[in-house]
Amino acid sequence: MHACKHIESVLHNEIPLTRAMEISVSHCDSNKIELTAPLSPNINHKSTAFGGSLYSIAVLCGWSFVFHQMQLNKLSGHIVIQHSEVNYNSPVDGEITAVCEFDDEIVLKRFMSTINRKGRGRIKLTVNIIFEDKIAVQFFGHYVVHQ
Amino acid sequence: MHACKHIESVLHNEIPLTRAMEISVSHCDSNKIELTAPLSPNINHKSTAFGGSLYSIAVLCGWSFVFHQMQLNKLSGHIVIQHSEVNYNSPVDGEITAVCEFDDEIVLKRFMSTINRKGRGRIKLTVNIIFEDKIAVQFFGHYVVHQ
Repeated sequence: MHACKHIESVLHNEIPLTRAMEISVSHCDSNKIELTAPLSPNINHKSTAFGGSLYSIAVLCGWSFVFHQMQLNKLSGHIVIQHSEVNYNSPVDGEITAVCEFDDEIVLKRFMSTINRKGRGRIKLTVNIIFEDKIAVQFFGHYVVHQ
Repeated sequence: MHACKHIESVLHNEIPLTRAMEISVSHCDSNKIELTAPLSPNINHKSTAFGGSLYSIAVLCGWSFVFHQMQLNKLSGHIVIQHSEVNYNSPVDGEITAVCEFDDEIVLKRFMSTINRKGRGRIKLTVNIIFEDKIAVQFFGHYVVHQ
């Protein structure tokens, strides 16, 4: 199965709310994961995306990034969010797109080798919600993996 | 209509995802709002509450607190989350309960009078997710009101 579809089915099977939110994995490679969701199931009273939906899509984008890295490195384990910060810069009144890009290969290799050696690891990820070419929401998440 | 039921119907009408999450308003007075939700629609792959659901319930608990204060003071306006921080201390594997308590009457009065005079106001709120008598999740939210 293509990696995008695999991550999407894991999300849909293991977190039922992702089906209600209609989240899909729209891009997936070793340095970048992108999740999208339509506005309508995630709308709020001002006809923009609900802050809780934006957060959920961002936290799952980071989760999916770690999951995919572990799959590429044939590692298994629990991925848990430990701490996060969110800045809401501007409203999103259309399709929601969350992007997690991480280009520091050295940090990624160290993260994977720490999990492999110690059965635990942690990483800080940034996820941006992009709308109309602007960063509408910035999400910073500390993820912990334990086997 | 009782204040709890009124807030609950506002949430359910204006944010459809709150129905999928089965959120209810279980307590409501001038200094405290409590929201609850069952685990099953908010479950994750480890049979505990999904971090995005915990966040959504917390952010809505703070939102409901501000909404209720404004109702008590006969004020209207848009309530928006601007910034938040979350600490996930321990998993929640049962009913989710979010509590926003705020006892500083001076700060609350100033917040309401600023909205009344300037058409804008801001407040920092803490929401705790309580599970088995412990704070499982701490949420800190900066809310902005504009008329």
